[in-house]
Order: sequence, then structure tokens, then C-alpha cells
Amino acid sequence: MMNKIEHIGIAVKSLKESNLVFEKLFGQPAYKEEEVESEGVKTSFFMNGPNKIELLEATKEDSPIAKFIDKKGEGIHHIAFDVDDIEAEISRLKEEGFIVLNEKPKKGADNKLVAFLHPKSTNGVLIELCQEIK
Amino acid sequence: MMNKIEHIGIAVKSLKESNLVFEKLFGQPAYKEEEVESEGVKTSFFMNGPNKIELLEATKEDSPIAKFIDKKGEGIHHIAFDVDDIEAEISRLKEEGFIVLNEKPKKGADNKLVAFLHPKSTNGVLIELCQEIK
Repeated sequence: MMNKIEHIGIAVKSLKESNLVFEKLFGQPAYKEEEVESEGVKTSFFMNGPNKIELLEATKEDSPIAKFIDKKGEGIHHIAFDVDDIEAEISRLKEEGFIVLNEKPKKGADNKLVAFLHPKSTNGVLIELCQEIK
Repeated sequence: MMNKIEHIGIAVKSLKESNLVFEKLFGQPAYKEEEVESEGVKTSFFMNGPNKIELLEATKEDSPIAKFIDKKGEGIHHIAFDVDDIEAEISRLKEEGFIVLNEKPKKGADNKLVAFLHPKSTNGVLIELCQEIK
């Protein structure tokens, strides 16, 4: 079961510049920054009530975020939903016909286990499932 | 102040087909459908904890959603944030340098007053402010 929108991921060219934009938007600064080397990204997180906004800047030319910006420009990259049991949710969604990109969840930013659904099976929307690591 | 992500708007070609996809994703059907003639769209809404997902299908060839799909394909169209006082928030954001597309909020779907920020001022993200009409 999906509990809520955990965060929305936004691809940006410069974390430094975009942090200022989103700080003005929300009236408060990012509460943390984190690099995920395996994904080739630097991230920052903003709280917004029960939800978060994650800004993503590529740290390598061939990272998924760099490719996304080359193709589509800056903008919304993915929606992440909070789940209690990511493995059960992966099984359920596979049975429902969704294309799950990570059979085994992997470690993502912000202390989460994550898995992605292919946008082909979800109307062009890249969906992330994420479960807090306890 | 922005309280939370009120909803994410997703542009789809067929509301009927996509309703089935998102019904499987969330494990429950849309709780309502609504046509907004002035915007040239039919919409459906799914609850997800404190948040909603809005699917949008164009009802006219020249509507913003039809143009979006022509240009970018199906996918995430906008993020809407819940605000208590939309006029105060419009003033605040204009002072912060954001480009507000609606000086006066207009009536949107789901019993809301809405206003949009130009994506140029928000890293390519179309942002909607929405205030519940009491």
C-alpha cells in the first residue's frame, strides 16, 4: 500500500542556484544535502508538511539526471510514494502488470530502500517506491 | 505558506484507460471525475493519504493539456500546493521574484481557487497554488 507522496524529485542544473529558488518558494531552506555516488547525483531536500521536494543535480555526464536534462530540460523527474513493505509492494505491482525496474530494492538517498517502475507502464510517469530503513 | 502537496497533475491521453492503471497502482478507484469546460479538460482524482493525484485528459484540440501531450507526451504536468490564503501567497511570491500567471485566482477543479507560477521562474516546474473554497 502507498501511504502518501513521500517526495517529488526535480532535476536541476545547479543545486546551489535552485536551492535559493525553492528556499524562497517554501519560505525555509533545504534541511539537508546528500550525495549519492552510485547514482551520480547531489541532492537537497525541502520539507513541505507531510511531503518533501528533492532537487537533483548530476555529478557525472552520463548519470540518469544528466541525460534527463539533456533530453527534456530541467523539471519534474519522478514521484516517490512511501510504502511500509517495499518487497510486498513490488510483488503486488508486478502481478498487476507494472514493469518494476529493480527486482531487489536498492539503497537510495535519505535513508531509504527504493525501487522504480518503468514510465511505459505508468503513463510516462517515473514512479519510485520508497521504504524508510529502520 | 504552503501546507503540503495538494495534488500532482498528470496529463493522459485517455482518462478511461489511465483510471484503470492508477486504480491498480493505488488499490482503489478514483473518488471523483469532473469536467472543467473553461480549461478544456476532464479530470479524475485519486486519494493517496494526505495527497491526491489528478489525471487530466484534453477535451479540445487546442487546450493546454492537448498541447502539452503533443509536445512532451503523457506525464507529470504540474504540482499543486495547498495554501490557506491564495491572495497573500500570490503577493509574497511576486515579491520574491516568481512570475505569477494569474494575478487574480481563478476557479479550478475540485472546489478550489487556483493560480499558476510560470515554469521559467521555477526550474521548469509548473506550480499551482490552490485554496479550498469554503
